[in-house]
Amino acid sequence: MHAIGVDIGGTKIAAGVVDDDGTILAQTRRDTDPDDVASIDAAIADVYRELSASFEVREVGLAAAGFVASDRSRVLFAPNIAWREYPLRDNVAALIGDPDVRIVVENDANAAGWAEFRFGVGRDVEDMVMLTLGTGLGGAIVSGGRLTRGAWGAAAEIGHMRVVPGGHYCGCGHEGCWEQYVSGSALVRDAQAAAISQPERAAALLALAGGRVEGVTGPLVTRAAQDGDPLAVDLLTEVGRWVGEGAASVAALLDPEVFVIGGGVSAAGDLLLVPARKAFDEQLSGRGHRPEAAIVIADMGNDAGMVGAADLARV
Amino acid sequence: MHAIGVDIGGTKIAAGVVDDDGTILAQTRRDTDPDDVASIDAAIADVYRELSASFEVREVGLAAAGFVASDRSRVLFAPNIAWREYPLRDNVAALIGDPDVRIVVENDANAAGWAEFRFGVGRDVEDMVMLTLGTGLGGAIVSGGRLTRGAWGAAAEIGHMRVVPGGHYCGCGHEGCWEQYVSGSALVRDAQAAAISQPERAAALLALAGGRVEGVTGPLVTRAAQDGDPLAVDLLTEVGRWVGEGAASVAALLDPEVFVIGGGVSAAGDLLLVPARKAFDEQLSGRGHRPEAAIVIADMGNDAGMVGAADLARV
Amino acid sequence: MHAIGVDIGGTKIAAGVVDDDGTILAQTRRDTDPDDVASIDAAIADVYRELSASFEVREVGLAAAGFVASDRSRVLFAPNIAWREYPLRDNVAALIGDPDVRIVVENDANAAGWAEFRFGVGRDVEDMVMLTLGTGLGGAIVSGGRLTRGAWGAAAEIGHMRVVPGGHYCGCGHEGCWEQYVSGSALVRDAQAAAISQPERAAALLALAGGRVEGVTGPLVTRAAQDGDPLAVDLLTEVGRWVGEGAASVAALLDPEVFVIGGGVSAAGDLLLVPARKAFDEQLSGRGHRPEAAIVIADMGNDAGMVGAADLARV
Amino acid sequence: MHAIGVDIGGTKIAAGVVDDDGTILAQTRRDTDPDDVASIDAAIADVYRELSASFEVREVGLAAAGFVASDRSRVLFAPNIAWREYPLRDNVAALIGDPDVRIVVENDANAAGWAEFRFGVGRDVEDMVMLTLGTGLGGAIVSGGRLTRGAWGAAAEIGHMRVVPGGHYCGCGHEGCWEQYVSGSALVRDAQAAAISQPERAAALLALAGGRVEGVTGPLVTRAAQDGDPLAVDLLTEVGRWVGEGAASVAALLDPEVFVIGGGVSAAGDLLLVPARKAFDEQLSGRGHRPEAAIVIADMGNDAGMVGAADLARV
Repeated sequence: MHAIGVDIGGTKIAAGVVDDDGTILAQTRRDTDPDDVASIDAAIADVYRELSASFEVREVGLAAAGFVASDRSRVLFAPNIAWREYPLRDNVAALIGDPDVRIVVENDANAAGWAEFRFGVGRDVEDMVMLTLGTGLGGAIVSGGRLTRGAWGAAAEIGHMRVVPGGHYCGCGHEGCWEQYVSGSALVRDAQAAAISQPERAAALLALAGGRVEGVTGPLVTRAAQDGDPLAVDLLTEVGRWVGEGAASVAALLDPEVFVIGGGVSAAGDLLLVPARKAFDEQLSGRGHRPEAAIVIADMGNDAGMVGAADLARV
Repeated sequence: MHAIGVDIGGTKIAAGVVDDDGTILAQTRRDTDPDDVASIDAAIADVYRELSASFEVREVGLAAAGFVASDRSRVLFAPNIAWREYPLRDNVAALIGDPDVRIVVENDANAAGWAEFRFGVGRDVEDMVMLTLGTGLGGAIVSGGRLTRGAWGAAAEIGHMRVVPGGHYCGCGHEGCWEQYVSGSALVRDAQAAAISQPERAAALLALAGGRVEGVTGPLVTRAAQDGDPLAVDLLTEVGRWVGEGAASVAALLDPEVFVIGGGVSAAGDLLLVPARKAFDEQLSGRGHRPEAAIVIADMGNDAGMVGAADLARV
Repeated sequence: MHAIGVDIGGTKIAAGVVDDDGTILAQTRRDTDPDDVASIDAAIADVYRELSASFEVREVGLAAAGFVASDRSRVLFAPNIAWREYPLRDNVAALIGDPDVRIVVENDANAAGWAEFRFGVGRDVEDMVMLTLGTGLGGAIVSGGRLTRGAWGAAAEIGHMRVVPGGHYCGCGHEGCWEQYVSGSALVRDAQAAAISQPERAAALLALAGGRVEGVTGPLVTRAAQDGDPLAVDLLTEVGRWVGEGAASVAALLDPEVFVIGGGVSAAGDLLLVPARKAFDEQLSGRGHRPEAAIVIADMGNDAGMVGAADLARV
Repeated sequence: MHAIGVDIGGTKIAAGVVDDDGTILAQTRRDTDPDDVASIDAAIADVYRELSASFEVREVGLAAAGFVASDRSRVLFAPNIAWREYPLRDNVAALIGDPDVRIVVENDANAAGWAEFRFGVGRDVEDMVMLTLGTGLGGAIVSGGRLTRGAWGAAAEIGHMRVVPGGHYCGCGHEGCWEQYVSGSALVRDAQAAAISQPERAAALLALAGGRVEGVTGPLVTRAAQDGDPLAVDLLTEVGRWVGEGAASVAALLDPEVFVIGGGVSAAGDLLLVPARKAFDEQLSGRGHRPEAAIVIADMGNDAGMVGAADLARV
């Protein structure tokens, strides 16, 4: 059975018709205004109408970047969209006006992780943890073949596991959150700090950035590392090390078979994975008495949220 | 339907017939030798025979202190009993000799947590994390009403989540494991360290311990704290603080409705819970936008492992 | 003998004639432009002319906020004034044009600490460490009655001792510097973070700040704490705790008789000192086998830099 | 002028006549009992008599492993010898019975550091910090050409600077002391922990140790590293990294021109120095705006304490 998945970002929504195998049969997009939540409801109804004109669909999955209530109907809070205790499912349902269409709301990182679990690099396992290294560090947990949502839908906020007491400040108001060590933002911040404290080591990186500290970006660090720049390699090694060390803590709790690394920073590939695996090996408790989780790069790309949301609407 | 639960400790086993409501109908015990694993198999078969003489039972749950394979048949490794890749289920089954009896092996902390979830303080929730503060820090995770076992049965080794990079050495060979801050051993070690570095503050505690640093024990610290000794109160506050701070990290991953605190240290009650809740409140990410987990004391006592193992044999 | 001390800030200079007892006999000021270093030279020469018209002086001490070379003539680097390898002494000497006038350049925090050592709360000791909690954390070290300048004049950059590996980012490009835990900026940042993560606890503080997180300032936290606001008390307790814990590390190296706390945050008095002393007591190595340093508030106020610079010109 | 230096260890004393250039002209030894402090007094008087029979000496320097009062006469506390508030100078003076002989007591690490400063690798600098990596981490500080003793003689207990809050337990009763990361004991402990948690990586090291975890020693790790064993290299790299990171904090306070590395672990040479220098470079605050301290191996060997004590008796 086909289902529609909608990935709702801050300034646009991407929607698609997805079949049982995770294949996208048709796609469409709309620009949106993150401060005008009613316009987002309307845009979702609109893409539904467009896509359902050509495909018969009964399920719609909405991937939302925020805390989603465990009844899969409301967004409790979103950092970048003006949703506060927002009845997204019911609002969209009212606009669609067809009681036979089932709508569910899912956290976007959960949706992306679910796509990897069902159709991507995690398709052969039952226990998987996804880490999405973007601006922050998002996550998804699959245990025994089921998505872990938690009592109130706030599970897998994995970037806010504390890894350093008294560590880096986090936008969440706390200190030492994992995402302050493992994310695109962390990479950029470390790179810019190195450009200040060790300008001679950062010469190549600064040159790529047009000589401006603020010009240093994540993709630029990755490119410099791929070209062999020692500082850039060190910076990615450091992020990778923190991936592995944090993953060892997660493994102590969840014992997954695989960690799937997604998000923009994952483009660094082995520059990230090799130190991640080394650190994981060194930090995993009970090593030698248990098999060890693999750490691999995601393979569903940017459509993962849409595909996962569609599939979760069938669950 | 009745089931037998067997809690296998280092030097004795405790077994009981448990009904559907978690009530123990009959009990028995045997002394065992942790270095003679065959004798443990025999003792289990023996208690089965004794108990099954008076009760009809088809399920036997064995709670084992070690890594248990996810097929619930083998103990991969145990720190205090000489099990190494040990086929405990099949060995016991061969001795019992009745193919209609279903036998499962479970990790003992998981069994105890399951008992709290089914019949104890967690009986009204679907998402629960148990923390057992004994010599080490054991744990159990229930997500969406199911026990989280992990890909290889090693989930919920919660005491080995790292909370301090470069922190206290742990018996597991790593540094900064949570159980080095939250356990009876941690409490005793901190108390003894205070007795060395701050003898005048520790005068009351040392007096209770007969003047010997090594005489300071966990129950003695709890007693001194209940009598108002400022150092003892501080020591339990510190353990409680680490309970709460670590629990906030766990909540970022699992979003449970309740944390259940068991083990010997939990006798300290509010001396532990009040600072634990305060630290949890201060450290929980996303607070204000989500409900907050309760932190409560376990109520199943020492029989939890036996009761939980029996119940898990029916799952 | 009288000497002139000049305290050179970012936007103004304050100069005074100081006698042997540290008493200021006359004072004057000039506005300056931090980007126009020649104008600062000229302003210094100008205040010299004004003050030397009424007093006979042969020594001029210049307190500069930056790295000062150990020959006391050049500013190697300043964060807020455009000095880079700048020959401040020789430039000013050329403008004054009197070879009998001796001019020395000193780091401003060193000058302030020296004033406390000679005329203030440290006047009866030989070994003292000053901590100035302002925007950052400045310091001065007096060992055996002499100012510790270091091999290249960069000693006593005490705010950049690392206290948390992987800790808060610092403007210096590193992580976990003491000044990120002990300074007015740290206090404000922690207060603002609490206002985000625990809005209900921060209600009183936010009300004082006109309801705006950015309106929360250090003096406001101190005032709220003096009025008994629990969060504000906790915030100052936390800064005080870090004062004491860091001071214990400094004491392991330098064994001073007194720590002198200055800067704007020191207005909090016992709200800062009590937790600082408690933490120092708990963390000092070898306690019980050695006397313990006192931790006290500075008493020379804002003129300390001017007075100390004048006095150091005589050394 | 010749002077006698006496290095007082737990079970023996080594004494020598030292000339103005730090050359040892004659030596002798005695076995001693650390629990019988009077016998140590007597042995010192005895070596004085023996050596003064052939050389005219008026100064005797005693190097003692403990807290030495700043009046250089008493040992306040020693961890391995039964000195408690012990008047070592006066007791020895009474036994020698010659009022023209000047006797001073110095901390042994200070004496060794002084020898390096006067005659060894630090002879051309005025600001030096010595780090002695033995069982613990001892230290000596020379600022502006003078030994830093502190207000009560307890300065340079550098191994007890805290580098990790909540870090490894230390024998001093605190947590996270530098010597728990930088010392022979730390090296051995990390090596043994690796042998437990990563037995396959530790195979070569274990083979050298006769297959026993407890057989792993510091010299053995150094030997394995020199032979290229990756784990052993990693272990020394880790100690070296902590040398450099801690030294960066010390440099923020003291700005020395050179760090001198002594003690048994220093035999590892570049295996220790290369990572130490890299970490120091990366962590030093204000880098680029100040010259950087060198990190070098000590060259006075085991006689440093004796030579330094003799020389300090002349100061």
